Amino acid sequence: MNFSTIITKKKNKIELSEQEIKWLVESFVKDTLKDYQMAAFNMAVWFNGMTETELSVFTSTMIESGITYNLDGVEGPFADKHSTGGVGDKTSLIFAPLVASFGVKVSKLSGRGLGQTGGTIDKLESCTGWTGEISEERFKEILNTVGLSIMSQSSNVVPADKKLYALRDVTGTVDSIPLIASSIMSKKLVVPADSIVLDVKVGSGAFMKDMDSASLLSKTMISIGKAHNRNVSVMLTNMDKPLGKAIGNAIEVKEAWDTLHGKGPEDLVELCTVAAALTLTQTGKFSDLEVAKQEVLQVLQSGKAAHYLKDFVQAQGGDFSKIEDYDKHFSTKHVIEIKAEKDGYVSFASADGLGYLSMHLGAGRETKEDIIDFAAGIYLNKTTNDPVKAGEVVMTLYTNIDKEESFIKDAQEQIVILDSKTDEQVILKLITD
Amino acid sequence: MNFSTIITKKKNKIELSEQEIKWLVESFVKDTLKDYQMAAFNMAVWFNGMTETELSVFTSTMIESGITYNLDGVEGPFADKHSTGGVGDKTSLIFAPLVASFGVKVSKLSGRGLGQTGGTIDKLESCTGWTGEISEERFKEILNTVGLSIMSQSSNVVPADKKLYALRDVTGTVDSIPLIASSIMSKKLVVPADSIVLDVKVGSGAFMKDMDSASLLSKTMISIGKAHNRNVSVMLTNMDKPLGKAIGNAIEVKEAWDTLHGKGPEDLVELCTVAAALTLTQTGKFSDLEVAKQEVLQVLQSGKAAHYLKDFVQAQGGDFSKIEDYDKHFSTKHVIEIKAEKDGYVSFASADGLGYLSMHLGAGRETKEDIIDFAAGIYLNKTTNDPVKAGEVVMTLYTNIDKEESFIKDAQEQIVILDSKTDEQVILKLITD
Repeated sequence: MNFSTIITKKKNKIELSEQEIKWLVESFVKDTLKDYQMAAFNMAVWFNGMTETELSVFTSTMIESGITYNLDGVEGPFADKHSTGGVGDKTSLIFAPLVASFGVKVSKLSGRGLGQTGGTIDKLESCTGWTGEISEERFKEILNTVGLSIMSQSSNVVPADKKLYALRDVTGTVDSIPLIASSIMSKKLVVPADSIVLDVKVGSGAFMKDMDSASLLSKTMISIGKAHNRNVSVMLTNMDKPLGKAIGNAIEVKEAWDTLHGKGPEDLVELCTVAAALTLTQTGKFSDLEVAKQEVLQVLQSGKAAHYLKDFVQAQGGDFSKIEDYDKHFSTKHVIEIKAEKDGYVSFASADGLGYLSMHLGAGRETKEDIIDFAAGIYLNKTTNDPVKAGEVVMTLYTNIDKEESFIKDAQEQIVILDSKTDEQVILKLITD
Repeated sequence: MNFSTIITKKKNKIELSEQEIKWLVESFVKDTLKDYQMAAFNMAVWFNGMTETELSVFTSTMIESGITYNLDGVEGPFADKHSTGGVGDKTSLIFAPLVASFGVKVSKLSGRGLGQTGGTIDKLESCTGWTGEISEERFKEILNTVGLSIMSQSSNVVPADKKLYALRDVTGTVDSIPLIASSIMSKKLVVPADSIVLDVKVGSGAFMKDMDSASLLSKTMISIGKAHNRNVSVMLTNMDKPLGKAIGNAIEVKEAWDTLHGKGPEDLVELCTVAAALTLTQTGKFSDLEVAKQEVLQVLQSGKAAHYLKDFVQAQGGDFSKIEDYDKHFSTKHVIEIKAEKDGYVSFASADGLGYLSMHLGAGRETKEDIIDFAAGIYLNKTTNDPVKAGEVVMTLYTNIDKEESFIKDAQEQIVILDSKTDEQVILKLITD
């Protein structure tokens, strides 16, 4: 087995054997295959792609570089949900309780946020005491008692992916569809889940720039799932605006809590309803997606699923009363109201722009070392397509940082008042196997 | 300027600016661009190629990484010839005297041999005392007095190419046409030469496997030459058999000397005649290639150009009497005659096979550290398509190594006796601008 044969085959679009793919990934992890060789291979993959078999073995070998979890002793079915990263995206905190309320257990690994998008782990840590650093045993216990649990993704999970991503990042191969697909799926496959719903964000500021590449990515992830006996479905969703009205940490948990009580913003409700309905049909709880959506919506409006969120947060050590009595616990030094400068319909320059603003207010990390201010963030008093009059408040900024003028300027740049409504659709397409 | 922009452009087939190409090569030489990044770039070039402008700047920047020579004070025109590496290829030693005899100066850098193909510098060193390590001043003096000079290519010549080749070698991008073209041409352009004739070997054992890629390489090199104001023409030649009858070092100089006296083997005579005729038309000595060939052939048969070889060897310190009195100076402990096992027409398994056999006999280097035995080598008593009877000598091996049985076995494996002649053509195609 040698690199020369492997690269020649890949360059000439000849399928690699399982042994060759396995050897390649293992050698890269062991450092016997050098970074410059893997960089050349990645670029050949960028041009020629990978076959389903190649990609399945590639992903399996990546997974084998680290620890995996089992759910022995817990009765399924199990479900997972993943998003490619959106601003204001607190879907998991609503999706998981909803699905759990139907008897489908949500066994999930999550990560922290970096840059303009937040991480579920950070958001949950705003409930003081909550931790994702729990043992496999405790994870299973909580799944058995509450029906959902979220663990922090440790550095021992798919270390090959970390190494590979760092290399792709500096060698121009981040945007390779098969490499993106195997990166995402390898981390999903570490925990057994019968059903996986993926939320792929599409748009100029998103991971995938257009529908064609987003669809190809979706199909690729579905095929990896299939090869590993998982039911995967994908929602292609719009990333031109933030999801919901809250951007930050505690403020997003609060919005999730409100949504679970039937008081959620329309776009967020739609996304969570469809994600949960997909999961429930995939796991056989319903045979018809439309029926599932109706049932989920009813649960959402009744507030019956809300306690799953509270129970789960408490089971992992979190003080949920902080969310229930939000205003008392999450006040900030500055509360800045940003007002409309003219009449019209609200729109935003970009979701990313608001994500970066929230980060600068203290809600996110620019570098891994930054400390998050759980109370910081943005609330959109008006959201896309809402009518507004000059002088009305469009958004409120919460921060403990003394840079009011700069924040006001940045926030105003994000607000675009239009003469008419724009075409706004949250879910662009569903792709199921 | 950053790598991310450059690789994105190259991946998407957008032409890079001169500044970008220059920055890329310079950064690679300085090590501020890492090997893994250059490896990814090379692979993108393997797929998408380079435009003429990109390649011209790429080659210029490579050249600027090292020393270059001028020929101030020497009257031209100047010519150079390069071969992509063939077994038994002593063309330069015949070409240079021929061309010089017509008043065109041959100013050439040459390298050493490694593996199955020999190097001109090694061959010339069989004339004890000869050295290619001469100063630029001495180079010019010899060009003025003799009309031809060959310098050893020092490590300061295009160091970027050495670094780049070492990387391509382990990252699957050796067979990239633009990278091969710029590698060859960068080293040719270090010395001013109005005319460059390139001999590109084609065939299963050769550098280029088929006529299409050989033609593409040729056109690419011609375009680089043009961008640097050089007249480049290419001969695509057959590499299924060794060139001439002698393989080794001193034995090849001897064959060159004999050829310059009108006693050369047909294929070698043809190649040298055409190469010289191309040069003489390119430098304006003749306007018609056929006329030039006739004139060159006449000089070759008359022996009038031979003294240029002797004068040049002596000017660079070599004892040419060793070649003139060959048998006295280059005897070996073993002289092994390999005989035909049946009647028929001679053919050889591969030119490379004979090259490796010659290397094992002591005439070549397996590693850079190996020491060459100038007397070792092979003489083909019969060559391709010669009729032979069982028991007649097909080739003679000269060696000082005591491995007769193994050498006999290897040599016999190289001989293929056929029932009929094969189609044998030395020059497959000429490509001129």
